[in-house]
Amino acid sequence: MTLEKILNADSVAIVGASKVETKRGFQAIKTLLDEKYDGKIYPVNPKEKSILGLKCYPKVSDIEFPVDCVLITTPANTIPAVLEDCGAKGVHGAVIIAGGFGELGEAGRQFEDEIAAIAKKNHIRIIGPNTSGIINLKRNLNLVGLHDTPKGDIALLTQSGNMALTLITEAKLKSRKGFSYYVGVGNETDIKFSEYLEFFREDPDTRAILMYVEGMRNGRDFLQQAYKTTLDKPIILLKGGRSLTGKKSAGSHTGALAGISEVAKSAFKRAGVIVIENPDELFPVAETLSSQPTVKNNSIAILADGGGHATIACDLLTDLGVTIPVLHETTQAKLRQILPRGASVTNPIDVAGGTDSDPTIFADCAEIILKDHDVGGLLIVGLFGGYAIRFAKHLELQEEDAAHRMGKLVKTGKKPLIMHSLYTSEKPHSLNLLRYYNIPVYDSLDVACKCIAALSEYGEYLASYHAKTNFILNGSNKAKREGIQIIRNVRNENRRRLLETEAVELFKSHNAPVATCHLAKTAEAAVYFASQMDQAVVLKIVSPDIPHKSDAGGVKLNLVTAGEIRRAFDEIIQNAKNFNPAADIRGVLVAPMVPEGLEVIIGTKIDDQFGPVIMFGIGGILVEVIKDISFRVLPVSPRSARKMIEEVRSYPILKGIRGNPPYDKKALRKLLMLCSDIIEAYPDIQEMDLNPIVVHEKGAKIVDARIILKDNTGHA
Amino acid sequence: MTLEKILNADSVAIVGASKVETKRGFQAIKTLLDEKYDGKIYPVNPKEKSILGLKCYPKVSDIEFPVDCVLITTPANTIPAVLEDCGAKGVHGAVIIAGGFGELGEAGRQFEDEIAAIAKKNHIRIIGPNTSGIINLKRNLNLVGLHDTPKGDIALLTQSGNMALTLITEAKLKSRKGFSYYVGVGNETDIKFSEYLEFFREDPDTRAILMYVEGMRNGRDFLQQAYKTTLDKPIILLKGGRSLTGKKSAGSHTGALAGISEVAKSAFKRAGVIVIENPDELFPVAETLSSQPTVKNNSIAILADGGGHATIACDLLTDLGVTIPVLHETTQAKLRQILPRGASVTNPIDVAGGTDSDPTIFADCAEIILKDHDVGGLLIVGLFGGYAIRFAKHLELQEEDAAHRMGKLVKTGKKPLIMHSLYTSEKPHSLNLLRYYNIPVYDSLDVACKCIAALSEYGEYLASYHAKTNFILNGSNKAKREGIQIIRNVRNENRRRLLETEAVELFKSHNAPVATCHLAKTAEAAVYFASQMDQAVVLKIVSPDIPHKSDAGGVKLNLVTAGEIRRAFDEIIQNAKNFNPAADIRGVLVAPMVPEGLEVIIGTKIDDQFGPVIMFGIGGILVEVIKDISFRVLPVSPRSARKMIEEVRSYPILKGIRGNPPYDKKALRKLLMLCSDIIEAYPDIQEMDLNPIVVHEKGAKIVDARIILKDNTGHA
Repeated sequence: MTLEKILNADSVAIVGASKVETKRGFQAIKTLLDEKYDGKIYPVNPKEKSILGLKCYPKVSDIEFPVDCVLITTPANTIPAVLEDCGAKGVHGAVIIAGGFGELGEAGRQFEDEIAAIAKKNHIRIIGPNTSGIINLKRNLNLVGLHDTPKGDIALLTQSGNMALTLITEAKLKSRKGFSYYVGVGNETDIKFSEYLEFFREDPDTRAILMYVEGMRNGRDFLQQAYKTTLDKPIILLKGGRSLTGKKSAGSHTGALAGISEVAKSAFKRAGVIVIENPDELFPVAETLSSQPTVKNNSIAILADGGGHATIACDLLTDLGVTIPVLHETTQAKLRQILPRGASVTNPIDVAGGTDSDPTIFADCAEIILKDHDVGGLLIVGLFGGYAIRFAKHLELQEEDAAHRMGKLVKTGKKPLIMHSLYTSEKPHSLNLLRYYNIPVYDSLDVACKCIAALSEYGEYLASYHAKTNFILNGSNKAKREGIQIIRNVRNENRRRLLETEAVELFKSHNAPVATCHLAKTAEAAVYFASQMDQAVVLKIVSPDIPHKSDAGGVKLNLVTAGEIRRAFDEIIQNAKNFNPAADIRGVLVAPMVPEGLEVIIGTKIDDQFGPVIMFGIGGILVEVIKDISFRVLPVSPRSARKMIEEVRSYPILKGIRGNPPYDKKALRKLLMLCSDIIEAYPDIQEMDLNPIVVHEKGAKIVDARIILKDNTGHA
Repeated sequence: MTLEKILNADSVAIVGASKVETKRGFQAIKTLLDEKYDGKIYPVNPKEKSILGLKCYPKVSDIEFPVDCVLITTPANTIPAVLEDCGAKGVHGAVIIAGGFGELGEAGRQFEDEIAAIAKKNHIRIIGPNTSGIINLKRNLNLVGLHDTPKGDIALLTQSGNMALTLITEAKLKSRKGFSYYVGVGNETDIKFSEYLEFFREDPDTRAILMYVEGMRNGRDFLQQAYKTTLDKPIILLKGGRSLTGKKSAGSHTGALAGISEVAKSAFKRAGVIVIENPDELFPVAETLSSQPTVKNNSIAILADGGGHATIACDLLTDLGVTIPVLHETTQAKLRQILPRGASVTNPIDVAGGTDSDPTIFADCAEIILKDHDVGGLLIVGLFGGYAIRFAKHLELQEEDAAHRMGKLVKTGKKPLIMHSLYTSEKPHSLNLLRYYNIPVYDSLDVACKCIAALSEYGEYLASYHAKTNFILNGSNKAKREGIQIIRNVRNENRRRLLETEAVELFKSHNAPVATCHLAKTAEAAVYFASQMDQAVVLKIVSPDIPHKSDAGGVKLNLVTAGEIRRAFDEIIQNAKNFNPAADIRGVLVAPMVPEGLEVIIGTKIDDQFGPVIMFGIGGILVEVIKDISFRVLPVSPRSARKMIEEVRSYPILKGIRGNPPYDKKALRKLLMLCSDIIEAYPDIQEMDLNPIVVHEKGAKIVDARIILKDNTGHA
């Protein structure tokens, strides 16, 4: 595939090559030479004969050898001509540094589209524009100019040059780990996040993928690829632009559309991605996930040499949803044998001075604790690594002994160990030894807790991996002839909003639980339809010009007698005319009253990152005031539907509280999936709002349905 | 005051002095000598003549000079005799290192009480037991044995030795700040947190107080003192034991009772304390608050040299509740003049390469931004300090120039500046210069954001400081004669639960909005009482043996006719007899039906840290399922009552939504204050539950009231 020719290029041309030391076009060549890139380097600049001892070419097409990839360091306005020339040469890919595109607004976005078109025509794949470049650390193919990036097995994929710099600096200073690749994604004009994922998934030297994202062009493809990837390799992701100001900042920076952040979070998690919100945790979690086995049963033991750290670790891990189980009685007995009387051995384990004169006791404890079947992983917190510094110099060797033993324990066992140590900055040898065994060491308790919690989260994901998850819409065959016809009619009338009667018909064609209803043109027709229903009815105005029926006095409930119905019909028509004398009134809808039950809401809308998403909540106050809702990217599987329902905080209501019977959750699941099908079936739909749906002990009924189509340009 | 004689002692005796180098009794003396403590040191050990060149005494009472304070390093069982001897000598205070007391359970707690009694009898104040000791850094009075603690203006007060070690290490490695005092509070047997606060509040060398707390013996006194202290000096506090496992861990560690964590958090905040949940933030926030002016209007500007950092800072600050206002048009214009075309100048400000070749531009930007009236403080994020490292060596001097200018800006202005820099670990001189001007520098974006947010939180607190806040109960004069009599009757019958009729009478005696109701012994009496009410009534069983009336079929609602009432009376009596044949049935309560309205709940209970607390929530699902409740430590002021009501997420319901009128919030405020008064008035009450209270557009009515008294021992 083409990415191979760029990320693993055998030859690179530098367009904008320069002899001026401060220019990118000089630095790029110098870096490749200094770091001994093992491919060919071709400087390109019509004004120079040679640069840094390399022959310089006037144009890329003048190069007499094959060129896999070009690094373009010249300004935005030169790009079209350069790309045409590269096309003539048969170049496979271009890394475009220049900014001045989509991130500057609409004009920039058009220019970006032009460039994309030129590249496509010339069969050139683009990284950027507005990127800091790429590095392949195995090949020393460094097109960024950043030096001393540590080599390792983490692939780094970001939309921000300074976040990359932060992460690389952190790796260098605080760990023994490093990177296989770095890619500055830039404006994602051509190559999408999903394609990079696919490349890294197949790369044998990459064990984890670390991402900083502000917004994605095609989030759904990313999710599908991430879902595939996380089965083999963890993806650790921080999404910038969660807040309103953050979104604006992201927009001015990469031109990214940041989407709805609750949607993003739940979608990433469903694809097995580990989502990080605090940047301090980003690299450490990637380090941990690329080094340690996962926690299998969400249960962690804490081993501490001081009460304060133990207490705080409990609080933090509890916040992170991790269980801290009481140790098995035999484990406790074994610990009691080697620890002083004052020690706590339930969990957290507090050695109460038991390691002060002999830190090898840490290894003994770790061995005992990790054998406990209920323990999925171990977090050691406190002073390990500093016993020689704090107590007596000779303890150094005992600490090293303990480090070797704990290292081997993790290597042979299948349970992870994370070390928190106050003494990391003193760089004691024992901590270095732990890192040699791939045991991560952190001086921050927050970070250490987050890392082991991430091992647990990833373990839980893999344990409950669901082979049928799918993020790709493929609903063309789900459409019904009646549905297509209804939407065509609406379009023909130049409307975007379906009448309630139309929405009901559409739902009925999909066998959705809507009550049979009729459009009455006269009061007598209304009375007739009601008599057929043999129960109390509701009347509602039907007019494309009155979207909010209640506001116009266009709804009358609970009508029984012919007199009531006639009076209601006349009042509704009169109210509508008063409300909007020019309204096109199609008649009055007659529908049976739905018996009381629990009101819930299902809605859909289009997220700018992921496309159609669906929302569920229990109606009224819980949605409006408490915002207690769950989201999913479509399509929704039976499992997602169940989880969406269970996820809302008010879920216990559905199970039946205060003597109420349980409500029909199965009917709701079916309805969520049906809504998913409908949105898949009719890509014209912009948003849908079923509010309320009334759920009963048996069954659920849609009481009011609104559907709005996309505008004719296909945009929202 | 006595604390002066301990924390500022002119002479110290070391009980358990030793020649063995690994013993605490040796290390303590060596440390005092090495660090040149400016007071007298008296080793005490009957077996030695002299230690480290100092005369050694058999007993404290053998010392021929005055002794302010003793450090007792001998085991728990020796303490009583040592204290008696110290009493004979007239010693003012003792620091007791030994563990083995309350943290081991009930027997330990009794022993701790004994020691406290001996100390009291001998007029000796105690720090500890189970403490790591104290340090007065001005005097080099170091009774901990920890070396190189940096001196400065932060007082450190903790319940965990290793948290102290963490914080001291962090100060040493990452800042120019240090400590005035360190106190290991230990089991808080005698001297309470509040007394230390009072001492530090008056200490001229202390500018901020940093605390790690697991549980307090007398939280209410602490709150009152904290409330007084935070007007002058910030208190920064992390509370361990928020989670259940954390609570247990705390209990096994300091014997502390950790209390209800929602209560603690809101109480601390009300006293102006800055509450921290992540240990990484604890020292930095103290450093910042002791160095920088507060943010005045909760509005912060972000200045960045890269989009990623800017975006993440926006997200984090938004999460922290800080506003990031759009800059004034004139500010933007001035920034545009000095920054390149691609720069964002709204806020966050992204220099877009504008500082690459001249980092003094940072100082120009800072000057312009801090002049904006809408900006309360500035956070700079990114690479400052690393321009010389990253771009060109000569930029070093420009960075230093910028640091001096920014330092002077903060010194003369009244707005804070915080620096985030990727390059702190490289220790560039420019960052050191910033610290010289008391500008905090952090390599963590999380921490930098939290610090400026804390300046904002503290600024907001001071701006809204409320001179009438009070945490002290003083309610003896609030009791009514009838109330006292009711409680006496309940006690006389050896009950703890008030009958509903008794609870109603108690509330009525305080003019609370309860409906007049009557106890009917016969069906005819019930009919008579109902006829007096002239509206539908409710009947409820009254029996000390049937606390859950509905479960026993003991409640009948909405009765109108005499027939209905008679039938209901008989059924209730029959149901009660079936439910519990031995029940002592006092009769049936007849009360008017309360018209429909909004149901809310008020409850009170006893927190083990703060004593009586009050709870408010909107009834039903919102309390039961969503746990949407607010808490306050009693007594409740009119302002607290208002804030409690506004704090629940469902508050908009009270303001009236979906066409409902607003409910009577004033009546609720009055009722909250009345409940507060009642709990103050009758210290016998353990808990109270008004569920539901029905609020109307005008007024509120208590529909059901339960009151439970403390058990006879005074415990819960």
